[in-house]
Amino acid sequence: MDKNYNRRKFLQTSALAGLGLTTVSASGNENVSGRTGIISDPVQTSRKSPRSSKLHIGFIGVGLRGRDHMDLVLRRDDCEVICIADPDAAAIQAGIRLCQSYGKSAPAAYGEGNYDYLNLLEKEDIDAVIISSPWMWHTQQSVAGMNKGLYVGCEVSGAFSLEECWELVNTHEDTGAHYFFLENANYRRDLLAVLDMVRKDLFGEIIHLECGYQHDLRNVKFNDGKTVYSRGTEFGETALSEARWRTNHSLHRNGDLYPTHGVGPVMNYIDINRGNRFTHLVSMSTKPRGLSAYVRDVGGENHPNAKLDWKLGDVVTTLIQCNNGEKVLVSHDTNLPRPYCLGFRVQGTKGIWMDVNESVHIEGKSPYHGWDDQEKWFEKYDHPLWRKYNDLASGEGHGGQDWFIINAFVECAKQNIAPPIDVYDAAVMRAITPMSENSIALGSAPVTFPDFTRGRWSVKKPDFGLDDRY
Amino acid sequence: MDKNYNRRKFLQTSALAGLGLTTVSASGNENVSGRTGIISDPVQTSRKSPRSSKLHIGFIGVGLRGRDHMDLVLRRDDCEVICIADPDAAAIQAGIRLCQSYGKSAPAAYGEGNYDYLNLLEKEDIDAVIISSPWMWHTQQSVAGMNKGLYVGCEVSGAFSLEECWELVNTHEDTGAHYFFLENANYRRDLLAVLDMVRKDLFGEIIHLECGYQHDLRNVKFNDGKTVYSRGTEFGETALSEARWRTNHSLHRNGDLYPTHGVGPVMNYIDINRGNRFTHLVSMSTKPRGLSAYVRDVGGENHPNAKLDWKLGDVVTTLIQCNNGEKVLVSHDTNLPRPYCLGFRVQGTKGIWMDVNESVHIEGKSPYHGWDDQEKWFEKYDHPLWRKYNDLASGEGHGGQDWFIINAFVECAKQNIAPPIDVYDAAVMRAITPMSENSIALGSAPVTFPDFTRGRWSVKKPDFGLDDRY
Repeated sequence: MDKNYNRRKFLQTSALAGLGLTTVSASGNENVSGRTGIISDPVQTSRKSPRSSKLHIGFIGVGLRGRDHMDLVLRRDDCEVICIADPDAAAIQAGIRLCQSYGKSAPAAYGEGNYDYLNLLEKEDIDAVIISSPWMWHTQQSVAGMNKGLYVGCEVSGAFSLEECWELVNTHEDTGAHYFFLENANYRRDLLAVLDMVRKDLFGEIIHLECGYQHDLRNVKFNDGKTVYSRGTEFGETALSEARWRTNHSLHRNGDLYPTHGVGPVMNYIDINRGNRFTHLVSMSTKPRGLSAYVRDVGGENHPNAKLDWKLGDVVTTLIQCNNGEKVLVSHDTNLPRPYCLGFRVQGTKGIWMDVNESVHIEGKSPYHGWDDQEKWFEKYDHPLWRKYNDLASGEGHGGQDWFIINAFVECAKQNIAPPIDVYDAAVMRAITPMSENSIALGSAPVTFPDFTRGRWSVKKPDFGLDDRY
Repeated sequence: MDKNYNRRKFLQTSALAGLGLTTVSASGNENVSGRTGIISDPVQTSRKSPRSSKLHIGFIGVGLRGRDHMDLVLRRDDCEVICIADPDAAAIQAGIRLCQSYGKSAPAAYGEGNYDYLNLLEKEDIDAVIISSPWMWHTQQSVAGMNKGLYVGCEVSGAFSLEECWELVNTHEDTGAHYFFLENANYRRDLLAVLDMVRKDLFGEIIHLECGYQHDLRNVKFNDGKTVYSRGTEFGETALSEARWRTNHSLHRNGDLYPTHGVGPVMNYIDINRGNRFTHLVSMSTKPRGLSAYVRDVGGENHPNAKLDWKLGDVVTTLIQCNNGEKVLVSHDTNLPRPYCLGFRVQGTKGIWMDVNESVHIEGKSPYHGWDDQEKWFEKYDHPLWRKYNDLASGEGHGGQDWFIINAFVECAKQNIAPPIDVYDAAVMRAITPMSENSIALGSAPVTFPDFTRGRWSVKKPDFGLDDRY
């Protein structure tokens, strides 16, 4: 392995000083033999030598999202931000200033083009890396990080091909390096309360689920080139932040481009990769009208960006069949005016929850054929994680979700244990995007999921959010 | 034609005495040439001789639903209930009593088995027939009625095959007899207000629609054999009302068994068969668990009906692609505990409405990224039909819907004009059921819609709910 390897031989039980916590073991729920033994043993026995120092973290991608994560890391006394990489000089400078604002020394900076992150990986003495780059870079940067033996945390995205998902899985299995898919929505307070309710059988046997990404992104996909989230018509080189790269996908691709915020939490309700799996999906798209209409509204009838051939249908709906007989309906709806709502629904033989009307019905407990306000239930079933960390998390990014995902990443990285949202989860979630594109291209034909676990889904046990640790 | 033919030669403009209304013409929107000239001419010129008497109506099927319709007809002074047919003696008796309760003479009764309706059609001097029998009888009874030259109104159902849908269409075109598909949901007050909003471009170009039948039917599918809608475990011979026949479909079939209440109203929003058409669909089903669980709850673990191999998945989701680029998501969800909600959503380039949270968002008028209470909009866009008939309709069955559908049926039958929900609409709506079954049987493969209009959809204009007539 590489020169960083020794540095990451730390003893898991000594690594929790940062939050003044103790822990006794990893979740211990991955009880199956892996191809390389990796997923059979969440605690890497070869790395159990004592560790006395802090978790050394590098950041690849320090735009707005990367700096959100860095901010959370900088507040902890069990981590150090060692280095940052970003081809954008302004982002690098903002990253350095952020470190300094916490009284920390400036991190080593790698800003010489798109590939300077490779120099970061080669030269820096780090344990872990957090990747928050544009979607197109996620796989190759993650693979490079795992190949250096680092504990990799990567922001969410859909993939571009199934091969790319396999590459992540294979690299993990070949190197033994862990990959934490940073799906923060898994920690949303209501979604964790619902997880508690699911596990306590309030909904009975789970039958049908809905989720998605229903978020009017028009002022994310376009801005005026001067202010992020402003009302504008620019994307690509002339725009700021996500509009520089994200919008390009709406121009060229038609499918569910961003399935993970919906699918991630839902997978926990039906034990995907842990006794259950996705078998196949179909996707259907509407016509694309929203982005052209928006540009016309903002920039006038003759604005050239209104006349582009936008490929992304305004609302893409995907139906996923599960091995154990459930169905998941996933919406992707980012081009039209609408209030934000991820559209969650959890429905079983005993009850139903929907987020859009913030209501729960549990048979025999809720009014006959009537709804309860969800708060009545969520107060009682607030997840142990939120009960424990409410004061630290609430007020942080995305309703506290960001705090939890970074905390979980750091705690798992310190112990070098298998993350609760792992490379197999990433592969199956990210696969939805190219599969959805394929299905639409084939007139909504069914497309089968690969089994990225090579059969181990049938014996692995649930490991996400089992208690109040991370 | 048959002997009833002369009786139905009445002048359309003289036939509106029943409600003290006047009308000048049929909607006149079917401006295309039909195979037999039928759909090119909503007023049958061959039948324009004066008519001085009332509309004479026969009823086939006088169970609970048929008697609902009969009750509405009996209150009108422009109709007479002439005859009834039903193989159930108790239903016949209840039908006779219902007529007598209005001080009318008893109708001729045809109760000698399943086929006595043929004697009714042969012997009785009627203009129109209303069919409210179990689903399995709808097509053959409608075809028999049209073959007798009657104006046929038929309750809603899904079909069993595409051939059956063609049979309806072909019989209409061969006989010139009209077929009114009695989809009452088209007249739901909120749905008509939304139709007004759609036509006034409040939502912009329509992109995505949702609808369905999300109705916990467990106490419809089962009862105790003594009281309708009671808590019981019986269906088939030992049960009452719909449980005698409807439940059998859940035992044997997997697909969207009842799509019309959702699809009917939605078709009006995107002009299906009137400039647009459904091209193909995919369906996906969950496992079936709800009905077994219900029988176990009510009748104990060992109740034999809990051990049956129920075929209907608890939640069936269908995605329909439209020629003009829209998509319709249709839910069928009748086996699980849940509050009633048909799940409507209308989404366009300028706004969105959902019924589950009773909310509207119209860009630039509603709060930024926020919802308005739908009532704020519906007050302003209440449909002319409801403004005119509120006093008569409200308080009647299904929130007034039943009053409107029967009124529309009677007004169209008196004029012998093409109904606003016609045989082509019936064919395409009813086709969803066997197509959904096919798609599910094929692993959610896409299934193409026949064009029941033989191309005329591309030139026909909208004709439903254009004004306050019917």
